[in-house]
Amino acid sequence: MPKTVAAFGEVMMRLQVPGHELLAQSDTLKYSFSGTGVNVISALSQFGHKGYLISRLPDNPLGDAAAAYLRKLGIDTSKILRGGSYLGMYFLENGFGIRPSRVTYSNRQESSFNTAPDGVYPFEQTAGEMDAVHFCGITLAMNDGVRRSMKEFAGQVKTQGGLVIFDCNYRPGLWGASGGYAFARPHYEAMLQLADVVFMNEQDALHVLGMTSASGKEQRQELLEELIPAAAERYGLRTVAGTHRNLLEDGRHSLRGYIYRDGRFSYSDVLVFPVHDRIGAGDAFASGIIHGELEGFAPERTVAFAAAAGMLAHTVTGDTPMASEAEVLRAMAQGLRDVER
Amino acid sequence: MPKTVAAFGEVMMRLQVPGHELLAQSDTLKYSFSGTGVNVISALSQFGHKGYLISRLPDNPLGDAAAAYLRKLGIDTSKILRGGSYLGMYFLENGFGIRPSRVTYSNRQESSFNTAPDGVYPFEQTAGEMDAVHFCGITLAMNDGVRRSMKEFAGQVKTQGGLVIFDCNYRPGLWGASGGYAFARPHYEAMLQLADVVFMNEQDALHVLGMTSASGKEQRQELLEELIPAAAERYGLRTVAGTHRNLLEDGRHSLRGYIYRDGRFSYSDVLVFPVHDRIGAGDAFASGIIHGELEGFAPERTVAFAAAAGMLAHTVTGDTPMASEAEVLRAMAQGLRDVER
Amino acid sequence: MPKTVAAFGEVMMRLQVPGHELLAQSDTLKYSFSGTGVNVISALSQFGHKGYLISRLPDNPLGDAAAAYLRKLGIDTSKILRGGSYLGMYFLENGFGIRPSRVTYSNRQESSFNTAPDGVYPFEQTAGEMDAVHFCGITLAMNDGVRRSMKEFAGQVKTQGGLVIFDCNYRPGLWGASGGYAFARPHYEAMLQLADVVFMNEQDALHVLGMTSASGKEQRQELLEELIPAAAERYGLRTVAGTHRNLLEDGRHSLRGYIYRDGRFSYSDVLVFPVHDRIGAGDAFASGIIHGELEGFAPERTVAFAAAAGMLAHTVTGDTPMASEAEVLRAMAQGLRDVER
Amino acid sequence: MPKTVAAFGEVMMRLQVPGHELLAQSDTLKYSFSGTGVNVISALSQFGHKGYLISRLPDNPLGDAAAAYLRKLGIDTSKILRGGSYLGMYFLENGFGIRPSRVTYSNRQESSFNTAPDGVYPFEQTAGEMDAVHFCGITLAMNDGVRRSMKEFAGQVKTQGGLVIFDCNYRPGLWGASGGYAFARPHYEAMLQLADVVFMNEQDALHVLGMTSASGKEQRQELLEELIPAAAERYGLRTVAGTHRNLLEDGRHSLRGYIYRDGRFSYSDVLVFPVHDRIGAGDAFASGIIHGELEGFAPERTVAFAAAAGMLAHTVTGDTPMASEAEVLRAMAQGLRDVER
Amino acid sequence: MPKTVAAFGEVMMRLQVPGHELLAQSDTLKYSFSGTGVNVISALSQFGHKGYLISRLPDNPLGDAAAAYLRKLGIDTSKILRGGSYLGMYFLENGFGIRPSRVTYSNRQESSFNTAPDGVYPFEQTAGEMDAVHFCGITLAMNDGVRRSMKEFAGQVKTQGGLVIFDCNYRPGLWGASGGYAFARPHYEAMLQLADVVFMNEQDALHVLGMTSASGKEQRQELLEELIPAAAERYGLRTVAGTHRNLLEDGRHSLRGYIYRDGRFSYSDVLVFPVHDRIGAGDAFASGIIHGELEGFAPERTVAFAAAAGMLAHTVTGDTPMASEAEVLRAMAQGLRDVER
Amino acid sequence: MPKTVAAFGEVMMRLQVPGHELLAQSDTLKYSFSGTGVNVISALSQFGHKGYLISRLPDNPLGDAAAAYLRKLGIDTSKILRGGSYLGMYFLENGFGIRPSRVTYSNRQESSFNTAPDGVYPFEQTAGEMDAVHFCGITLAMNDGVRRSMKEFAGQVKTQGGLVIFDCNYRPGLWGASGGYAFARPHYEAMLQLADVVFMNEQDALHVLGMTSASGKEQRQELLEELIPAAAERYGLRTVAGTHRNLLEDGRHSLRGYIYRDGRFSYSDVLVFPVHDRIGAGDAFASGIIHGELEGFAPERTVAFAAAAGMLAHTVTGDTPMASEAEVLRAMAQGLRDVER
Repeated sequence: MPKTVAAFGEVMMRLQVPGHELLAQSDTLKYSFSGTGVNVISALSQFGHKGYLISRLPDNPLGDAAAAYLRKLGIDTSKILRGGSYLGMYFLENGFGIRPSRVTYSNRQESSFNTAPDGVYPFEQTAGEMDAVHFCGITLAMNDGVRRSMKEFAGQVKTQGGLVIFDCNYRPGLWGASGGYAFARPHYEAMLQLADVVFMNEQDALHVLGMTSASGKEQRQELLEELIPAAAERYGLRTVAGTHRNLLEDGRHSLRGYIYRDGRFSYSDVLVFPVHDRIGAGDAFASGIIHGELEGFAPERTVAFAAAAGMLAHTVTGDTPMASEAEVLRAMAQGLRDVER
Repeated sequence: MPKTVAAFGEVMMRLQVPGHELLAQSDTLKYSFSGTGVNVISALSQFGHKGYLISRLPDNPLGDAAAAYLRKLGIDTSKILRGGSYLGMYFLENGFGIRPSRVTYSNRQESSFNTAPDGVYPFEQTAGEMDAVHFCGITLAMNDGVRRSMKEFAGQVKTQGGLVIFDCNYRPGLWGASGGYAFARPHYEAMLQLADVVFMNEQDALHVLGMTSASGKEQRQELLEELIPAAAERYGLRTVAGTHRNLLEDGRHSLRGYIYRDGRFSYSDVLVFPVHDRIGAGDAFASGIIHGELEGFAPERTVAFAAAAGMLAHTVTGDTPMASEAEVLRAMAQGLRDVER
Repeated sequence: MPKTVAAFGEVMMRLQVPGHELLAQSDTLKYSFSGTGVNVISALSQFGHKGYLISRLPDNPLGDAAAAYLRKLGIDTSKILRGGSYLGMYFLENGFGIRPSRVTYSNRQESSFNTAPDGVYPFEQTAGEMDAVHFCGITLAMNDGVRRSMKEFAGQVKTQGGLVIFDCNYRPGLWGASGGYAFARPHYEAMLQLADVVFMNEQDALHVLGMTSASGKEQRQELLEELIPAAAERYGLRTVAGTHRNLLEDGRHSLRGYIYRDGRFSYSDVLVFPVHDRIGAGDAFASGIIHGELEGFAPERTVAFAAAAGMLAHTVTGDTPMASEAEVLRAMAQGLRDVER
Repeated sequence: MPKTVAAFGEVMMRLQVPGHELLAQSDTLKYSFSGTGVNVISALSQFGHKGYLISRLPDNPLGDAAAAYLRKLGIDTSKILRGGSYLGMYFLENGFGIRPSRVTYSNRQESSFNTAPDGVYPFEQTAGEMDAVHFCGITLAMNDGVRRSMKEFAGQVKTQGGLVIFDCNYRPGLWGASGGYAFARPHYEAMLQLADVVFMNEQDALHVLGMTSASGKEQRQELLEELIPAAAERYGLRTVAGTHRNLLEDGRHSLRGYIYRDGRFSYSDVLVFPVHDRIGAGDAFASGIIHGELEGFAPERTVAFAAAAGMLAHTVTGDTPMASEAEVLRAMAQGLRDVER
Repeated sequence: MPKTVAAFGEVMMRLQVPGHELLAQSDTLKYSFSGTGVNVISALSQFGHKGYLISRLPDNPLGDAAAAYLRKLGIDTSKILRGGSYLGMYFLENGFGIRPSRVTYSNRQESSFNTAPDGVYPFEQTAGEMDAVHFCGITLAMNDGVRRSMKEFAGQVKTQGGLVIFDCNYRPGLWGASGGYAFARPHYEAMLQLADVVFMNEQDALHVLGMTSASGKEQRQELLEELIPAAAERYGLRTVAGTHRNLLEDGRHSLRGYIYRDGRFSYSDVLVFPVHDRIGAGDAFASGIIHGELEGFAPERTVAFAAAAGMLAHTVTGDTPMASEAEVLRAMAQGLRDVER
Repeated sequence: MPKTVAAFGEVMMRLQVPGHELLAQSDTLKYSFSGTGVNVISALSQFGHKGYLISRLPDNPLGDAAAAYLRKLGIDTSKILRGGSYLGMYFLENGFGIRPSRVTYSNRQESSFNTAPDGVYPFEQTAGEMDAVHFCGITLAMNDGVRRSMKEFAGQVKTQGGLVIFDCNYRPGLWGASGGYAFARPHYEAMLQLADVVFMNEQDALHVLGMTSASGKEQRQELLEELIPAAAERYGLRTVAGTHRNLLEDGRHSLRGYIYRDGRFSYSDVLVFPVHDRIGAGDAFASGIIHGELEGFAPERTVAFAAAAGMLAHTVTGDTPMASEAEVLRAMAQGLRDVER
């Protein structure tokens, strides 16, 4: 049964050089609008849920363009505030082979989202209308005001019985000036205390949460199976999920998803696939997990669905997953297919 | 020695989303005009023959654009009728990796070709001017009027000593409403009775013609070698040819052509290659077979030429093969080459 | 105060050759989705109202693309049905100077909208949720099923106290085969009997409604002032509005709007302006009138607002008006301005 | 009744910067293929005649592209020779307002056309198949070999009873190094001796032919009416035609055509129009005159048709006229029109 | 004789929606890099001078792209510092007719230029290498650090005998928060005290400098002739120059330049022209004045040259003038011309 | 420490069909400017050196565009002469899989570079300002004048103590008419007599220099190790370097670089990589070797750096390498990386 979900997060403008030219070679950009919350809510609305973004956009042509784009993605924008002056942006140059893709950010600190005054969001009311709300660790890196808002909203959701979903994603470059892991940790822990469903893997446990392996294990898989249950217990998490990704010699990626639920690990197959657009694919996996949790799938099915959704997101242009539930199920069931007529 | 050839068939407008975006993401389409007959005749005129399309286009800017495009491909359009109001169309979204390409059709039933009144084509005269005429099973799916025209034209060609070429291609979605294989079969059989050169494989023999294996064999290869000679005998076919295609794990396709002529099978090598544009590549193989038949190549050479032509067609943008005879011969002779200066 | 409004009508795909090339010269199309109802509801949602489209789209990638595009325009698509197979389309080649723009239609009769089964729309319920619903005469030209739906829906709106808005637009080419004005007239009259706000001018009165001038007047302005009050009385119309347009020698257009309300005519200034995109601009004028009616503007203000909205729509790419209420008001207040920073 | 016509001339590649950028600003070019002969024959085939180009193209991908493009324009390319190595090219930067458009040529002297060996064209046979053949003065500027071919072909056409059409066009930059008017004159006179229909105006008579006004008149119109009859008599010309063009302050052009036939001048109206693509529009006027001559129009109708064809050619992208006879007639009959549906 | 010149100012990224779509309609941007200093120095290097930009760019792909673009414009970038993280940006939506173009800025305060640490530029050394340095009032609006740098650099130029050029340009939106004219005035006055050549008109004198008319005159022309000499005397200015611009009904602009030098006013003709790209055209006028000053033109010639340069800049795509001295002189000498071959 | 370097060579315009269409299918070209000298100097200026091109460009919009493009690449164009009329060009159609890319040249013999009068370059002065100058064997194929200039310039560099770098590249098609290897050899030998650093492999030794294997060896590697030391001794070369390239079945290329210096061979790893843009990648390897030589890298490091630079150049759009020294070092140190943020 479709649920009503929301994400709290910033909308960013993605400005991508077409083809494989560098910014210093081209004169054209394709633009779209994304963000972790955007990606997750768009994917969930493709899966049939009613999805809102809780954010703030400037009341100017850039804000209008962003709102129009989000509506196109199927996101209900009626709860997005308008105010402030700027939009965060990033420029993307596509790599090729050994040459990696490059992302260059503009200044996000002055964005409408990151300069929202305290109290401007009606969190209490919004929390009451949602079955689940998604938060992302990247948002925690912004500033004190945003952190306060995020914790307040998550608290309201928890209080009113909604599901709090937290993605433990940590972007080192964003915290650098303010002190790194040590500074960030209490904020992550505050969110984990409120969360029901969390995305992380053993690296996050080690670095962001500062956990250590009692057993001295070093293999990723072993560490995962030691640390995730410990984290789930420490913070009272119902569900923890995440992926292991490898870049293969021939340029393809391999991806394996896991879910830890009710004290038990389930894993997807190791999926191997060529990559068209890497950015945002992690959010597709997260959306698949959330969909499984909202729909009450068995964990095995949830993680298989999420991994297939993640794989499909690599085949689609743009940050934002575009696959319907039927398309994800078809990708789970079938291999490579010829033209679909 | 160059021959004069024609194809009877519909011209469709191909509307392709550039790059890898979906129709719901993009705002731009590249358009061209194709169809089995278009592809075959264009390829044959690249190989040096004089080629006509026998078809009907609307007398409006879309019809003008289609006719201009066919001329550009080297097709003589002076026998194409103008009348009716519409053109069949299809939209193409390129897939990537596990995500298949998608084709979405517009309504073809009301097209100029499919609404041509009885008697509007001067088939008797045209048949007398041609060394060979190509027909396609897809055309049989349209409606009674088109089927009547097709059989009348093929009959005239046969009567006047021309070569009747028939591609047994069957598109299930087009027959669905009118009864499927059972309904279609007599129409295919009527064409086979008139045909000299036929494109089909064991699947067509089983499903379209309703043949069964006397030996209970199940391997494609074994079935092919049992059923094709039986079909050739039943319908009095001089030449039968076709391909087996596989999709490999790494995204490449493999293709092997066969020709059955004078009671003997010849096979091409199994060609393995990456794919740039899949659609229409089957018509390139057919054109290669027809070229070999018209030029009197030995069957071994004909099927090798056809397979190379088919492989090259996968490397070219658009439905329509663009390789000259020299380029096909070079592809047969050489492997991968560096830049050609 | 924002109202809840809907339009009943077909969504068409617009496929436009970029620049000034002909279809026979180019290979690229820009596509968007429009229709009278789309244009009116999009404009009204720009003016702050909540707007729905009541229509039917195919459940395929074209339907997905259309729905995404409508959402981008600010239209609520949650009441649009999915079913049927096709979308109506039109191709647009831009003219230049003495060379007029050309529109070429594909077959609309088989579209999802025009093949909707009787009873598939929940008109009674929808009518109860709307303050006003817009209908267009072009829709009347489609077929009996569509005409039945349209009258049923308009009847439900009237019965439940909503405002019935009817645009008397008559497209001769669409009625040709079925009998022209004589055949169409009773259907227009049925809608006029139900309507509160109507768009028409003296040409519609003469030709569509078959009215004649008692006074033998021949000037457009005189005829307008004679025939519109007569029509308003005959059909019990609260408000009638429309425009007179002229093409000037230097390529600019002039436009003057009128509104007849409470037995009194009000006129806008004669606006003169260069034209960037002509198609759909009439719907912008209509939207301005509807906005004035919904907001209770004085008729003088309503018609000035509508004319400015119509003028602005000629400056915007695409069929669909993009101006906010503030932008229309600014265009009413000011002349040509330099860059806006 | 449709005639069979040919033009003898070079095919050039046009490489145009899109929009209004300079070559030093952009990185993209649109290309097409044109030339006086291409433009005239394409226009005549649009008017219903069967048209050939007699030329020579390199046997490489550029030559293939040129041939494909000419076929698209409706030109029969079966008499075009393949050989040599190069194609003449020109780059076009669009001007705006006071900033004029700029044309930059590549080296034409080494082109396939300009290096054709003597005797390579079967002029005698071709001349016998044509009702009329078009030659252009620009071709005379190339080199001795081309001049010999041109005179030989024109002589064969005259001998075999075909119509010799000669455009007196003189491009100063092309003759500079070899001696200017004095050097060029005998070649122009040789062609005029063979010609039936000639395009020129009083400037050509003064400068190219070195004629002088006996009366000392200085007005263009007076000079025209004095010098053209004198030239017609001196060279035995059946028909002489040409235009006077002015650039208006507001950027529009005005154009008036004349025809001198059977000792009598006829003039078109002075047409005033905005300009989309200036290059090649003179060839559209010439095509209109030729069409009138071939069809036996009265001179008044011929010159009006030609002027309208010339005007329409300014509204179309590319060098080559795209209007059908019906479109020219409509432009003669009507003024500015709204969208054509 | 060519001089060595520099400008001190920010480089901004211009992101323009192609054609006439809004940001909410399109998905593509064309980008370039500009700024008052960029425009002036690029124009001067087109006129033959050696030109440097004194600025600061981020050491990332955006900074690389900006530097490459400036080099392409002919600017010597070897004195540009690399550091900081961001680039100022603005988005441009092209207007049409009554719909004005819109500029939307991103946050400039955090740009590399506006966050340059004190003392990072080697102003003393650079000042000694330059014949003239250009400064712009817009730069004054940034922050205290930038203002300090600007005054220090101008002081060094003056001390070492270079020409100080100051453009009195005032952008109200940039000062708003910090106090408007009253806050800005002392900074403008400090620059005027150092300046030799100043760009301003009577509006700047009234508003920015707070001057008043002793005579109570109200006509622009009268005010100009009263206030400019007073300002020149008050601040010890050798040359003051500027323009009056009007927008005409038909969309064209009119422009008249003035120069006040040695106590005497000279005026250009009133130039009337259509506009292709408005932004940056004022900088072209300034460049023309500076060129005249550097070359020792008579004031009449200087102002005529500057006005023609300004007019031409409206015909060129992008902010930055592209005309050579020869092209400006040709525009001064001639009217509209046909294609230049 | 950065050095001052130059290359002597022609600038060519590259006109590339976007995507994978043929010239006969598309209507659009992307253009840029390149040449061996352009590529080498651009790469060296990316590595931090000051780089000049010594060449000649036409004084027209094409020459302006070329100069602007070279500046953008970081090349100092102040020593480029302007004169002559034409620019050499080549058209590039991208291959796919088995279909090779095709290059079609325009006539270069009449280019500004190839028609430069004797004595027009101030070689003596320029040679004195350079630490090293690069020459390419392709230039030797042009004509006697160019060969004289090249030898004179190299002689001056040698005399004045600069490093003479010579790329032994031999393009058969360019020499054909003038006699092939036998005719070319003395010119290559003259350059080798002057050279310090030479690019060649065993094929060049065998064919261009006519060397033979004393040992009768046939393996490439064995031949290389026999012939290169012999050539180094014969011509007195300090450094010889080059590559062996293979095309793998899956479309990837493998590349191994060697350097022979001080009587000792060093080799890079065999690098295997997918190819985005093949043309010009050899020049990137050469630039890496030159950089190592100029900076005094150990030979092992030089050849590893050069091979990585060559590999990276295959991943970049256009002929010209775009990698900085830091990016090459990163490619040497790391394998495939995920997105760089």
